[in-house]
Amino acid sequence: MGGDRAPDMVLKGASIALQRFPQVEFLLYGVESRIRPVLAKLPRLAQRATIRHTDDVITGDAKPSVALRAGRRSSMRLAIDAVADGEAHCVVSAGNTGALMAMAKFALKMLPGIDRPAMASFFPTQRGESVMLDLGANVECDADNLVQFALMGDVFARTVLGLQQPTVGLLNVGAEDLKGNDAVRGASARLRGAGSPIRFHGFIEGDDIGAGTVDVVVTDGFTGNVAIKTAEGTARLYAEYLRAAFKNSLSARIGYWLAARSLRKLRERLDPRRYNGAVFLGLQGICVKSHGSADAHGFANAIGVAVDLKINGFLDKIRDGVARLNALQAPVDKPQSAAL
Amino acid sequence: MGGDRAPDMVLKGASIALQRFPQVEFLLYGVESRIRPVLAKLPRLAQRATIRHTDDVITGDAKPSVALRAGRRSSMRLAIDAVADGEAHCVVSAGNTGALMAMAKFALKMLPGIDRPAMASFFPTQRGESVMLDLGANVECDADNLVQFALMGDVFARTVLGLQQPTVGLLNVGAEDLKGNDAVRGASARLRGAGSPIRFHGFIEGDDIGAGTVDVVVTDGFTGNVAIKTAEGTARLYAEYLRAAFKNSLSARIGYWLAARSLRKLRERLDPRRYNGAVFLGLQGICVKSHGSADAHGFANAIGVAVDLKINGFLDKIRDGVARLNALQAPVDKPQSAAL
Repeated sequence: MGGDRAPDMVLKGASIALQRFPQVEFLLYGVESRIRPVLAKLPRLAQRATIRHTDDVITGDAKPSVALRAGRRSSMRLAIDAVADGEAHCVVSAGNTGALMAMAKFALKMLPGIDRPAMASFFPTQRGESVMLDLGANVECDADNLVQFALMGDVFARTVLGLQQPTVGLLNVGAEDLKGNDAVRGASARLRGAGSPIRFHGFIEGDDIGAGTVDVVVTDGFTGNVAIKTAEGTARLYAEYLRAAFKNSLSARIGYWLAARSLRKLRERLDPRRYNGAVFLGLQGICVKSHGSADAHGFANAIGVAVDLKINGFLDKIRDGVARLNALQAPVDKPQSAAL
Repeated sequence: MGGDRAPDMVLKGASIALQRFPQVEFLLYGVESRIRPVLAKLPRLAQRATIRHTDDVITGDAKPSVALRAGRRSSMRLAIDAVADGEAHCVVSAGNTGALMAMAKFALKMLPGIDRPAMASFFPTQRGESVMLDLGANVECDADNLVQFALMGDVFARTVLGLQQPTVGLLNVGAEDLKGNDAVRGASARLRGAGSPIRFHGFIEGDDIGAGTVDVVVTDGFTGNVAIKTAEGTARLYAEYLRAAFKNSLSARIGYWLAARSLRKLRERLDPRRYNGAVFLGLQGICVKSHGSADAHGFANAIGVAVDLKINGFLDKIRDGVARLNALQAPVDKPQSAAL
């Protein structure tokens, strides 16, 4: 029931995802009288979907604490509970982010060794695609949180991007050891430490995000949220300027017409729908958040992320990774560049 | 002597700036034997420039504390001292940012009522141009710092963009009152308070930067630095994808040729050189930092920012603004939305 155009958008998205993953079965939580008529028009999905009726819905402006207390029969909570109970493998929602996070953390529990969940997503770069986390789950983070995010990001990139040994960078205001706050300096010291299972690149700066300098960008939830939205806003600004440029003269209009097919590919390459689906990492269950404004194709991609994680055994890999991290010695006090 | 291509780039930049501001006189601090031959080729600049020789130069990797202690005869320090002594109206440098900040703060002193300097710069938006601060002077900021940044940004936008009543937004992870950390919530409460001299829009998110939702974006130096560099990196990514798209087919190549003039305008509109020149706000003197990688046109723009601030009486306006801010009642404890 979550998102700007639910349930239509969610059901159409599920129908598109089913074409890519014909083996998936769906449990649809929400108001049956609103779901049923849409499902009737999607016969292939209807065959593989079960409606689980509930009248209770978490609104977009509900506070997480209230949702947690009063939303026990909500469609969002029941969908999460299905994962907690082992009835479903993953939950995907386009609803209230804070409520989804709070309820998923409560019902699914954290993985041992991970203190806080982090939101992770892909984004396009000059080298292909990279992963960034945290995108907003934790406004304040300490060094331990960032180290755990690095580990989870590493496993996420291996699992979903299929990388053998992803490079991990810590977002900072400069590349030198002395730059930044205690959290990034402390995390850098630990990640550089001897025996670290992570291929740590070191500090990176904001322009390294688009350049694709590393496969995994690690940062706190405040900075990550601002960075990913700044990138979206800048891409929109550029597209707007480009549109204006092509209207500038007759020859530019003709030029646009001739280049239209190639420009369409450019748009597809940067299409935010392709990158829809932020994963809550660190939970004992797979929970994916779609943008509330996503359309059916965007929502299908969010479902695709969840299915990919399940198929590729993401949770087991994270458990292994945490064990490797914890097997390391105690954190070192200062950067050991020589140990690289 | 600072920047990747000094002193040539600096001198050529000064020569370009002189065309726009024929009344400006230059004091050139640095190694005379390197400055003299370049200046010989720029006769118009030579007529309005005086070389102040020193052999001592602050390197790009010097720590601010070391520069402050050991760099008393450096070209950077002597140029700042010229402003402190009233011999020059403003100082412009493409050198080591941290050293420039530390020395400028020490030699020029803070304006009364401002606790910390902030770096501010313009950037292009869908609505024109906006200002963002802090871009990296302060990795950690409290609510008072952010309120002072808001005030300085407001005066900066009035002075240089010529706006009557600029709108000011606080960068956050969401628009709701409860979002964010203590610093942004505290600053928001004060800026919304009755009698605030600032037209406070409220919280904004990363995508509001490119959209131009507000004229002044206020944030801490960590987030601001990441945001501005993320925007630069995303613009570069988009340009790279665009270049690839135009090479995609013969018709796209012809299309490019036809639209080339309009696309050149697009590039100019987004040219980072146009936005070169970050100002250290909060000091009792005008100090502008050029990108180290700037070319002569970029450096000329940094000089232009400094001259604009001087011509338009920026320092007096900031002093007035601080007085107005301090005349307000004590900060309120919670958002007074009704007072808007």
